Amino acid sequence: MSKHEIAVIPGDGIGNEVVPAALDVLNTVAEVHGGISFEFTNFPWNCDYYLKHGIMMPEDGLNTLQSFEAIFLGAVGDPAKVADHISLWGLLIKIRREFEQVINIRPAKFINGIVSPLTNPNDFDLIVVRENSEGEYSEVGGRIHKGEDQIAIQNAIFTHKGTERAIRYAFELAAKRKGHVTSATKSNGIFHSMPFWDEVFKEVSLDYPEARTASYHIDALAAFFVTKPHIFDVIVASNLFGDILTDIGAAIMGSIGIAPAANINLNGKYPSMFEPVHGSAPDICGKGIANPVGQIWTAKMMLDHLGQQELGQKVLTAMEETISNGIKTPDIGGNASTKEMTEDICRRLKK
Amino acid sequence: MSKHEIAVIPGDGIGNEVVPAALDVLNTVAEVHGGISFEFTNFPWNCDYYLKHGIMMPEDGLNTLQSFEAIFLGAVGDPAKVADHISLWGLLIKIRREFEQVINIRPAKFINGIVSPLTNPNDFDLIVVRENSEGEYSEVGGRIHKGEDQIAIQNAIFTHKGTERAIRYAFELAAKRKGHVTSATKSNGIFHSMPFWDEVFKEVSLDYPEARTASYHIDALAAFFVTKPHIFDVIVASNLFGDILTDIGAAIMGSIGIAPAANINLNGKYPSMFEPVHGSAPDICGKGIANPVGQIWTAKMMLDHLGQQELGQKVLTAMEETISNGIKTPDIGGNASTKEMTEDICRRLKK
Ligand SMILES: CC(C)[C@H](C(=O)O)[C@@H](O)C(=O)O
Ligand SMILES: CC(C)[C@H](C(=O)O)[C@@H](O)C(=O)O
Repeated sequence: MSKHEIAVIPGDGIGNEVVPAALDVLNTVAEVHGGISFEFTNFPWNCDYYLKHGIMMPEDGLNTLQSFEAIFLGAVGDPAKVADHISLWGLLIKIRREFEQVINIRPAKFINGIVSPLTNPNDFDLIVVRENSEGEYSEVGGRIHKGEDQIAIQNAIFTHKGTERAIRYAFELAAKRKGHVTSATKSNGIFHSMPFWDEVFKEVSLDYPEARTASYHIDALAAFFVTKPHIFDVIVASNLFGDILTDIGAAIMGSIGIAPAANINLNGKYPSMFEPVHGSAPDICGKGIANPVGQIWTAKMMLDHLGQQELGQKVLTAMEETISNGIKTPDIGGNASTKEMTEDICRRLKK
Repeated sequence: MSKHEIAVIPGDGIGNEVVPAALDVLNTVAEVHGGISFEFTNFPWNCDYYLKHGIMMPEDGLNTLQSFEAIFLGAVGDPAKVADHISLWGLLIKIRREFEQVINIRPAKFINGIVSPLTNPNDFDLIVVRENSEGEYSEVGGRIHKGEDQIAIQNAIFTHKGTERAIRYAFELAAKRKGHVTSATKSNGIFHSMPFWDEVFKEVSLDYPEARTASYHIDALAAFFVTKPHIFDVIVASNLFGDILTDIGAAIMGSIGIAPAANINLNGKYPSMFEPVHGSAPDICGKGIANPVGQIWTAKMMLDHLGQQELGQKVLTAMEETISNGIKTPDIGGNASTKEMTEDICRRLKK
């Protein structure tokens, strides 16, 4: 009997609707399987917490989280309550950084039963490996002067170590898939960091002579995600480029509500964190119609990470069956509620 | 009789095929109209020039260009010959910078007869106003240490002046259109520059109380370009974000080969420059099948800039007619050559 202790942070908005849904699925998995159990501990850290305490999580929050095997997160941020860069850097990005979750993995694939906005979605099946620890997301920089003279300087910082491990991760992942790695660059416009990125990509690729590789500037790559997503297997991208590409990935799947993500700690010192790509969607919160698929698919990624790949596959299959049977929330063209969709997935898992 | 002296830089690859096509169109316009003429002066500055001279244009190149009313450019760059950041910063970006072409305008709209990759392109009609002088495209930064210890630092620099004039330009443009301005931000992840961008956007918007505004993070915005491009009117974006969005804009129109652009000098000190969004496409160069529409639509933007809006409109109409009559290059689903498409457009202009 393996027991997994999971820290749960539903966060803001619909996080509080889709996280319980995904926990139902995980509990069902445990129930059906028998040899595995979960202990979920809930942490109510979000923008409301900030409004009460002036901080997104307690001082010893990271310490508390550290003893868990994994962190399961909903969505953080609600700009009507707290400025995004405060809420995000005080919780989401803080955990990614402090727990050295240096890689963010985000799959996107054509799912039968979800209407893609593309006329010809062509059964694409890709994974973006996003560098998750540095790059354009940096607190280094600041401002000088006031009013009309003000200047903001933002430093993007690319270390060899950070760049190399993301690229290597992509090559390792591709070796288990179709063996093709695409690098997202912009070395024609971004003068220092991107030529550096290209060099490291070339260097690492020498260690994988069987891999096929490609390199596109982010503008062209973003366009190719729309015009020919089926050409991709694994794409490796900087923090910002990975962020942009994965939202386009979600869009071509048919809804931002279904895209999952995993923030991976590679050195085993800290827990990894699992959170969907979507945000807290305050506009649909409270209506019971949030799409639980992003969070449930994220739970599947957590199962994989916990060594339960077979159970992970079951969750994915149940989810795809529910969708292709038309039990869908409004964002993907159905009229089911969050609850109905979740119940149908659980029912299929029990069969 | 108004005579316009235009500097022409075909550049690399298909630039040498689509620029002559667009000049044919401009000459036809002049011929038909009677009251206007063009004098084109050709400058063979490109990667081949670099291979011979070690420099992308002569030392006094900028001086030479300065006396022209406008610059008409094809495409620059061919990574098989010269590294992109050398060719681009030595010519394209150099001209944008030195001639203070601080705004880059890029329209994207649904064109009847071009198959969009979107199932529901919904007659979108938008313009991206791209900040063209600073931001993420900056030579400020560098590297320290070697090998595994190497670090690349890239500075993005946002001045109040640069940010404000791009945003103001967008509001002015929107006032002549649907009055809606969308700001591309990423203030939740990019800590210094993007909250600054948001502040300036808010500040400028106060001067336009009738305008409707929206602000989206670039990841969501890129996704919305795919899922609901019809919601946009004018979008204002930083150098990098504008670059990415306009390639997606080209993709949803149906081909990167048709998107036009104008680099605008606002203070009247230097010529503006007109260049399509697409690159030099070495892969299709020499086959006679390059789509001339991007370059011809760019010529239309140059006509507008020269005060010949009526003629500009005629070119656009002729171009749209040619396309909707099925005279199309392969990239947009036809089998016409560059020459056939261009001739058909000229024929319509003569009618
Ligand atoms: C070639 C490159 C430097 C350029 C840019 O990024 O500005 C191009 O992509 C464009 O959009 O004009
Ligand atoms: C909320 C934001 C900071 C975050 C990011 O950009 O990393 C989100 O967009 C994501 O993709 O996880």
